Amino acid sequence: MKKKPFARTPEPPYYAVIFSSIREEGDEGYAEMAQRMLELAKRQEGFLGVESAREEMGITVSYWRDRASIARWKADLEHQEAQRLGRERWYAAYRIRIARVEEERLFERGEV
Amino acid sequence: MKKKPFARTPEPPYYAVIFSSIREEGDEGYAEMAQRMLELAKRQEGFLGVESAREEMGITVSYWRDRASIARWKADLEHQEAQRLGRERWYAAYRIRIARVEEERLFERGEV
Repeated sequence: MKKKPFARTPEPPYYAVIFSSIREEGDEGYAEMAQRMLELAKRQEGFLGVESAREEMGITVSYWRDRASIARWKADLEHQEAQRLGRERWYAAYRIRIARVEEERLFERGEV
Repeated sequence: MKKKPFARTPEPPYYAVIFSSIREEGDEGYAEMAQRMLELAKRQEGFLGVESAREEMGITVSYWRDRASIARWKADLEHQEAQRLGRERWYAAYRIRIARVEEERLFERGEV
Protein backbone atom coordinates (compact mmCIF):
# COMPACT_ATOMS: atom_id res chain seq x y z
CA MET A 1 0.00 0.00 0.00
CA LYS A 2 1.26 3.46 -0.88
CA LYS A 3 2.01 5.91 1.85
CA LYS A 4 -0.59 8.67 2.06
CA PRO A 5 0.95 12.05 2.67
CA PHE A 6 -2.33 13.81 3.40
CA ALA A 7 -2.40 16.43 6.11
CA ARG A 8 -4.28 15.04 9.10
CA THR A 9 -6.45 18.06 9.64
CA PRO A 10 -9.17 18.32 12.30
CA GLU A 11 -12.88 18.95 11.73
CA PRO A 12 -13.43 22.26 9.93
CA PRO A 13 -13.33 25.16 10.32
CA TYR A 14 -9.60 25.76 10.03
CA TYR A 15 -7.44 27.68 7.56
CA ALA A 16 -5.51 26.82 4.38
CA VAL A 17 -2.67 28.81 2.83
CA ILE A 18 -2.55 27.90 -0.87
CA PHE A 19 0.89 28.77 -2.21
CA SER A 20 1.17 28.36 -6.03
CA SER A 21 4.54 29.14 -7.55
CA ILE A 22 6.75 29.09 -10.62
CA ARG A 23 10.42 28.55 -9.83
CA GLU A 24 13.41 30.19 -11.45
CA GLU A 25 16.02 27.82 -12.95
CA GLY A 26 18.69 26.38 -10.64
CA ASP A 27 18.61 25.48 -6.96
CA GLU A 28 20.59 28.39 -5.42
CA GLY A 29 20.05 27.07 -1.91
CA TYR A 30 16.33 26.54 -2.43
CA ALA A 31 16.00 22.86 -1.47
CA GLU A 32 17.87 23.35 1.80
CA MET A 33 15.82 26.41 2.71
CA ALA A 34 12.53 24.71 1.78
CA GLN A 35 13.38 21.81 4.08
CA ARG A 36 14.34 24.19 6.89
CA MET A 37 11.11 26.20 6.48
CA LEU A 38 9.04 23.00 6.58
CA GLU A 39 10.71 22.00 9.84
CA LEU A 40 10.21 25.48 11.31
CA ALA A 41 6.56 25.62 10.19
CA LYS A 42 5.85 22.27 11.83
CA ARG A 43 6.98 23.70 15.15
CA GLN A 44 4.73 26.76 14.91
CA GLU A 45 1.74 27.00 17.20
CA GLY A 46 -1.43 26.34 15.20
CA PHE A 47 0.25 24.42 12.36
CA LEU A 48 -1.99 21.51 11.29
CA GLY A 49 -0.24 19.96 8.30
CA VAL A 50 0.97 20.44 4.75
CA GLU A 51 0.46 18.91 1.29
CA SER A 52 2.70 19.60 -1.66
CA ALA A 53 3.33 18.75 -5.34
CA ARG A 54 5.35 20.28 -8.13
CA GLU A 55 5.31 19.92 -11.92
CA GLU A 56 5.48 23.05 -14.07
CA MET A 57 3.76 24.78 -11.17
CA GLY A 58 4.35 24.03 -7.52
CA ILE A 59 1.40 23.92 -5.13
CA THR A 60 1.93 23.77 -1.38
CA VAL A 61 -1.12 23.92 0.84
CA SER A 62 -0.39 24.40 4.54
CA TYR A 63 -3.16 24.13 7.10
CA TRP A 64 -3.49 26.26 10.20
CA ARG A 65 -5.78 26.54 13.20
CA ASP A 66 -6.62 30.22 12.61
CA ARG A 67 -5.47 33.42 10.90
CA ALA A 68 -3.46 34.47 13.96
CA SER A 69 -1.24 31.37 13.51
CA ILE A 70 -0.75 32.27 9.84
CA ALA A 71 0.15 35.85 10.73
CA ARG A 72 2.69 34.71 13.33
CA TRP A 73 4.34 32.37 10.83
CA LYS A 74 4.48 35.11 8.19
CA ALA A 75 6.19 37.41 10.73
CA ASP A 76 8.78 34.82 11.92
CA LEU A 77 12.21 36.39 11.36
CA GLU A 78 13.85 33.39 9.73
CA HIS A 79 10.78 32.92 7.54
CA GLN A 80 10.87 36.62 6.60
CA GLU A 81 14.43 36.15 5.33
CA ALA A 82 13.32 33.10 3.31
CA GLN A 83 10.45 35.15 1.84
CA ARG A 84 12.91 37.85 0.82
CA LEU A 85 15.24 35.32 -0.85
CA GLY A 86 12.23 33.75 -2.53
CA ARG A 87 11.35 37.03 -4.23
CA GLU A 88 14.99 37.83 -4.99
CA ARG A 89 16.17 34.45 -6.24
CA TRP A 90 13.91 31.43 -6.30
CA TYR A 91 10.52 32.38 -7.65
CA ALA A 92 9.55 33.88 -10.99
CA ALA A 93 6.06 34.39 -9.61
CA TYR A 94 3.74 33.18 -6.90
CA ARG A 95 0.22 33.47 -5.55
CA ILE A 96 -0.68 33.12 -1.88
CA ARG A 97 -4.33 32.60 -1.06
CA ILE A 98 -5.59 32.46 2.50
CA ALA A 99 -8.80 30.50 2.79
CA ARG A 100 -11.11 29.31 5.54
CA VAL A 101 -11.85 25.59 5.16
CA GLU A 102 -15.56 25.06 5.73
CA GLU A 103 -16.02 21.44 4.69
CA GLU A 104 -13.89 18.33 4.16
CA ARG A 105 -14.70 15.02 2.48
CA LEU A 106 -12.46 11.97 2.56
CA PHE A 107 -12.22 8.85 0.44
CA GLU A 108 -10.02 5.85 1.26
CA ARG A 109 -10.14 2.62 -0.70
CA GLY A 110 -11.54 -0.35 1.22
CA GLU A 111 -8.29 -2.19 1.85
CA VAL A 112 -6.63 0.76 3.57
CA MET B 1 9.83 33.88 -20.01
CA LYS B 2 7.96 30.86 -18.69
CA LYS B 3 4.23 30.62 -19.10
CA LYS B 4 2.44 31.18 -15.81
CA PRO B 5 -0.46 28.82 -15.38
CA PHE B 6 -1.95 30.64 -12.41
CA ALA B 7 -5.71 30.90 -12.17
CA ARG B 8 -6.75 34.48 -12.88
CA THR B 9 -9.06 34.82 -9.94
CA PRO B 10 -10.94 38.00 -9.02
CA GLU B 11 -10.67 39.97 -5.79
CA PRO B 12 -11.64 37.80 -2.81
CA PRO B 13 -13.95 36.56 -1.48
CA TYR B 14 -14.45 33.52 -3.69
CA TYR B 15 -14.15 29.77 -3.11
CA ALA B 16 -11.44 27.13 -3.55
CA VAL B 17 -11.91 23.38 -3.82
CA ILE B 18 -8.64 21.74 -2.76
CA PHE B 19 -8.56 18.20 -4.17
CA SER B 20 -5.57 16.16 -2.89
CA SER B 21 -5.28 12.62 -4.22
CA ILE B 22 -3.20 9.46 -4.46
CA ARG B 23 -3.70 7.58 -7.72
CA GLU B 24 -3.89 3.87 -8.25
CA GLU B 25 -1.40 2.37 -10.73
CA GLY B 26 -2.25 2.48 -14.45
CA ASP B 27 -4.27 4.92 -16.50
CA GLU B 28 -7.53 2.99 -17.06
CA GLY B 29 -9.08 5.89 -18.92
CA TYR B 30 -8.07 8.44 -16.32
CA ALA B 31 -6.17 10.94 -18.50
CA GLU B 32 -9.00 11.18 -21.01
CA MET B 33 -11.62 11.62 -18.30
CA ALA B 34 -9.50 14.20 -16.45
CA GLN B 35 -9.20 16.25 -19.64
CA ARG B 36 -12.94 15.96 -20.28
CA MET B 37 -13.80 17.03 -16.72
CA LEU B 38 -11.49 20.04 -17.01
CA GLU B 39 -13.27 21.13 -20.19
CA LEU B 40 -16.68 20.60 -18.60
CA ALA B 41 -15.70 22.46 -15.42
CA LYS B 42 -14.49 25.44 -17.43
CA ARG B 43 -17.96 25.76 -18.96
CA GLN B 44 -19.73 25.73 -15.58
CA GLU B 45 -21.31 28.91 -14.33
CA GLY B 46 -19.19 30.36 -11.53
CA PHE B 47 -15.94 28.59 -12.51
CA LEU B 48 -12.99 30.96 -11.99
CA GLY B 49 -9.90 28.89 -12.77
CA VAL B 50 -7.78 25.89 -11.80
CA GLU B 51 -4.20 25.13 -10.71
CA SER B 52 -2.74 21.66 -10.65
CA ALA B 53 0.43 19.66 -9.92
CA ARG B 54 1.23 16.00 -9.30
CA GLU B 55 4.20 14.16 -7.81
CA GLU B 56 3.56 11.39 -5.28
CA MET B 57 0.42 13.32 -4.40
CA GLY B 58 -1.74 15.23 -6.83
CA ILE B 59 -3.15 18.61 -5.83
CA THR B 60 -5.77 20.34 -7.96
CA VAL B 61 -7.23 23.58 -6.69
CA SER B 62 -10.27 24.82 -8.59
CA TYR B 63 -11.70 28.25 -7.89
CA TRP B 64 -15.39 29.13 -7.88
CA ARG B 65 -17.56 32.18 -7.41
CA ASP B 66 -19.59 30.68 -4.56
CA ARG B 67 -20.68 27.45 -2.91
CA ALA B 68 -23.75 27.20 -5.14
CA SER B 69 -21.46 26.91 -8.19
CA ILE B 70 -19.48 24.16 -6.44
CA ALA B 71 -22.67 22.29 -5.55
CA ARG B 72 -23.95 22.48 -9.15
CA TRP B 73 -20.66 21.10 -10.48
CA LYS B 74 -20.69 18.28 -7.92
CA ALA B 75 -24.23 17.36 -9.03
CA ASP B 76 -23.49 17.44 -12.80
CA LEU B 77 -24.45 14.01 -14.16
CA GLU B 78 -21.32 13.43 -16.24
CA HIS B 79 -19.18 14.60 -13.32
CA GLN B 80 -21.09 12.26 -10.98
CA GLU B 81 -20.14 9.34 -13.23
CA ALA B 82 -16.48 10.49 -13.17
CA GLN B 83 -16.63 10.71 -9.37
CA ARG B 84 -17.96 7.15 -9.22
CA LEU B 85 -15.19 5.85 -11.50
CA GLY B 86 -12.66 7.79 -9.44
CA ARG B 87 -13.65 5.91 -6.30
CA GLU B 88 -13.95 2.58 -8.13
CA ARG B 89 -10.80 2.72 -10.25
CA TRP B 90 -8.48 5.70 -10.23
CA TYR B 91 -7.89 6.88 -6.69
CA ALA B 92 -6.46 5.03 -3.71
CA ALA B 93 -7.52 7.96 -1.54
CA TYR B 94 -8.46 11.59 -1.74
CA ARG B 95 -9.37 14.62 0.34
CA ILE B 96 -11.68 17.39 -0.84
CA ARG B 97 -11.63 20.62 1.14
CA ILE B 98 -13.99 23.48 0.37
CA ALA B 99 -12.59 26.80 1.51
CA ARG B 100 -13.56 30.45 1.28
CA VAL B 101 -10.64 32.54 -0.01
CA GLU B 102 -10.42 35.68 2.11
CA GLU B 103 -7.12 37.17 0.95
CA GLU B 104 -4.75 36.90 -2.01
CA ARG B 105 -1.20 38.17 -2.47
CA LEU B 106 0.72 38.10 -5.74
CA PHE B 107 4.37 38.28 -6.64
CA GLU B 108 5.71 38.64 -10.20
CA ARG B 109 9.37 39.19 -10.99
CA GLY B 110 10.16 42.60 -12.47
CA GLU B 111 10.66 41.53 -16.07
CA VAL B 112 7.24 39.88 -16.36
